[in-house]
Amino acid sequence: MIVSEIKLRVRYGETDQMGFVYYGNYPEYYEVGRTEALRTLGTSYKELEDNGIFMPVINMSIKYIKPGKYDDLLTIKTIINELPRTRMNFIYEIYNQQNEMINRGETTLIFLSKEKNKPIICPEWLNKIFKKSFQEI
Amino acid sequence: MIVSEIKLRVRYGETDQMGFVYYGNYPEYYEVGRTEALRTLGTSYKELEDNGIFMPVINMSIKYIKPGKYDDLLTIKTIINELPRTRMNFIYEIYNQQNEMINRGETTLIFLSKEKNKPIICPEWLNKIFKKSFQEI
Amino acid sequence: MIVSEIKLRVRYGETDQMGFVYYGNYPEYYEVGRTEALRTLGTSYKELEDNGIFMPVINMSIKYIKPGKYDDLLTIKTIINELPRTRMNFIYEIYNQQNEMINRGETTLIFLSKEKNKPIICPEWLNKIFKKSFQEI
Amino acid sequence: MIVSEIKLRVRYGETDQMGFVYYGNYPEYYEVGRTEALRTLGTSYKELEDNGIFMPVINMSIKYIKPGKYDDLLTIKTIINELPRTRMNFIYEIYNQQNEMINRGETTLIFLSKEKNKPIICPEWLNKIFKKSFQEI
Repeated sequence: MIVSEIKLRVRYGETDQMGFVYYGNYPEYYEVGRTEALRTLGTSYKELEDNGIFMPVINMSIKYIKPGKYDDLLTIKTIINELPRTRMNFIYEIYNQQNEMINRGETTLIFLSKEKNKPIICPEWLNKIFKKSFQEI
Repeated sequence: MIVSEIKLRVRYGETDQMGFVYYGNYPEYYEVGRTEALRTLGTSYKELEDNGIFMPVINMSIKYIKPGKYDDLLTIKTIINELPRTRMNFIYEIYNQQNEMINRGETTLIFLSKEKNKPIICPEWLNKIFKKSFQEI
Repeated sequence: MIVSEIKLRVRYGETDQMGFVYYGNYPEYYEVGRTEALRTLGTSYKELEDNGIFMPVINMSIKYIKPGKYDDLLTIKTIINELPRTRMNFIYEIYNQQNEMINRGETTLIFLSKEKNKPIICPEWLNKIFKKSFQEI
Repeated sequence: MIVSEIKLRVRYGETDQMGFVYYGNYPEYYEVGRTEALRTLGTSYKELEDNGIFMPVINMSIKYIKPGKYDDLLTIKTIINELPRTRMNFIYEIYNQQNEMINRGETTLIFLSKEKNKPIICPEWLNKIFKKSFQEI
């Protein structure tokens, strides 16, 4: 299991007139968490794209527990439970400054060949990087 | 069952460098669909807020089937299957110009009293409006 | 002079906790107006990109006059005053339902060759389309 | 003169299909810079709102110099040149990792009384905080 954490401050533009973080902004927070998780694994999503791989999301579920608020310094915890093959799963837990979990989500991503525009199995070079991180921990 | 439809053109700012609609923009599309569905029911979300009721989302799930693209004229189909009590469920189906379903989602919302900042049962006046629409169809 | 109009309903996610349209959302409204203006001219921004031309914005100025509000049905008026050469200027006026101008902006865009990644003069085929529209009106 | 700096990583959702940061996202970057500048001054925008003051933007101008790119670690430099009275001006300079200025903007904000919904002069308590910061530097 790999756990990566990153802090993120809620922007004014991310709130809505309810006074909370707009519910549609959490997927972007997950993306921030996912990006850092891949960096922790020794690669980056940018590097993946540079190597001809897109990773589109095919499934997402979100549980909104408590509201996020403007200027909150949130902690995005991203969890990878298993090595990917054709799919890669990420779990996200978002905590506020009182360390309360305010949001929990899951996404499933696939590996897409840019060139062929088709889903592929996680490439060997990438799998090696992931495996190394899993063994180290 | 109530079905409401609205068309929406994909904005440039809603795409990402993958060349598709960014996955985090679909919740906003659902909100557009939900807003029109409530209007179809004879009220509006604005009216609800003016009457002291917030309707925050507590659960969402999304299935990304095909990519949405810039300048696509999407059809957002919003489905209400049952009269709300403490919760209100919406189903969303998004179709592209070739009439292919590209995205499907579900959300659960609660009724929140602005004044008490607490969940409430769907108020009687609102329930009446909803009931009327369900009977008419 | 070419004037194009499109209506647009303010989304909940576009408001902020001040209860107004977030100031950062107006550029996207301008983009919606610009897209329709180009369609009025007999082409579309999508077609331009399909023909290897990007049109990035290099300058923008905005005057915020009155707040936009949730569920407002705004009118985006887009004005093109002159045929483009190396630059193309757009003026935007946004009106609310009371026909009050709530926002006014201007943008300057250039023509960028996708292939060469360099600014170019407005291509002849595009210029012809624009000229035709200017003459008709 | 007060200068405040904050780093910010470009999110995937902030890019568009041109492969660059969408031009409409820079105002949100400015807001992030402004928020930190106010914190540097010994207050925070949140505190201002908690004290009944909104600070809406009434004017903005942006010069787009070079594209921002996904995963870039940008530096937002926010400059306050003068003590506010009825208006407060901010200048923003955005630098990429190669220390190239990619974007430059200016905004003018007013002080709005929440209670009266009217523009006011910068309150004395706030002016004192600002003055102190200007003198220290």
